[in-house]
Amino acid sequence: MSTSAAIEALKQALKVLPGVGPKNAQRMAFHLMERNREGARDIANALNYALETVRSCERCNTFCESLLCDICSSAKRNQSLLCVVETPADLEAIEQIGAYRGLYFVLMGRLSPLEGVGPEKLGFVKLNKTVAENEITEVVIATNITAEGDATADYTQQLLAPYDITISRLARGVPVGGELEYMDQRTLAAAFKDRRSAD
Amino acid sequence: MSTSAAIEALKQALKVLPGVGPKNAQRMAFHLMERNREGARDIANALNYALETVRSCERCNTFCESLLCDICSSAKRNQSLLCVVETPADLEAIEQIGAYRGLYFVLMGRLSPLEGVGPEKLGFVKLNKTVAENEITEVVIATNITAEGDATADYTQQLLAPYDITISRLARGVPVGGELEYMDQRTLAAAFKDRRSAD
Repeated sequence: MSTSAAIEALKQALKVLPGVGPKNAQRMAFHLMERNREGARDIANALNYALETVRSCERCNTFCESLLCDICSSAKRNQSLLCVVETPADLEAIEQIGAYRGLYFVLMGRLSPLEGVGPEKLGFVKLNKTVAENEITEVVIATNITAEGDATADYTQQLLAPYDITISRLARGVPVGGELEYMDQRTLAAAFKDRRSAD
Repeated sequence: MSTSAAIEALKQALKVLPGVGPKNAQRMAFHLMERNREGARDIANALNYALETVRSCERCNTFCESLLCDICSSAKRNQSLLCVVETPADLEAIEQIGAYRGLYFVLMGRLSPLEGVGPEKLGFVKLNKTVAENEITEVVIATNITAEGDATADYTQQLLAPYDITISRLARGVPVGGELEYMDQRTLAAAFKDRRSAD
């Protein structure tokens, strides 16, 4: 037990952060109170501001501060192409390529029976609505190439099957720069199975 | 760049936490906004409450919410014994043994030229005052047994040399349960050098 109840309460509160255990929470609490009170105030203010302003985009479900996010409200984006991703971080990773000019839909997670995340906890109802109400001709499912990501992709594919749209999934294969000698068997097998015609 | 400026600001703010880089800050921000808004509010409130209430004990320099901490204001503690530690976490570790009944002094860090921490950034002025103004007969220097902790201990020892008090340091040696075969050379050398008389 700390000599300060306020520090103790702060430690408890910090433990909700992902990947932060009791020791780490204590280190953070001591660091903020002893070495960076300004930083602590910044965090508190940023949290309160985000809690007040951050909501979900009506169309793509990503974080934003208005009805529609910047991407959904941009006239420059291809309105007929929709890319389904797990998280806003994935959206940002794809935006950084700079090659994709369609819209997104962010599920806000992946199906994970072990963590108690079923379809009802993800954005599938909104996805259905977005596809139904917009002129979308192709959906690219870009979930992670993991067991949970694949299950999420399968579910998405089934959900969208009734619509008359092209559904595609990300190519699986050897990453650029990858050496076959060091590649795991499942990746190599996928690269063989999904081999493309030489052009 | 995030689609939300508030999330972006939150990520920046969270990066001041020790051990938290950009990726981790993003994960924390997304987690709080998507999965645990109540937890986010708890953190903001705990930070603000701690910023308002947490101060340094007038005597021992540890975190507390009143003029003197619970330990310094307790009549049950031995007022003539002072244990100098680096951090409140070290104080708590020693309290958990349950065997030490004296007072503490918390330096709030260790000397570290590499991190720009000189004596002026630690509690040495207050330590001098605490030793001068109280009836202390023995000081146990309990800094970490590291290069920085040892340098901090040496500095403390020099600072307190003018006083007519006994100064001791923690025993170095093989930890309880330690096997000699797996002990590093410096620990073994210290255990030999500081060998105690068999009783």
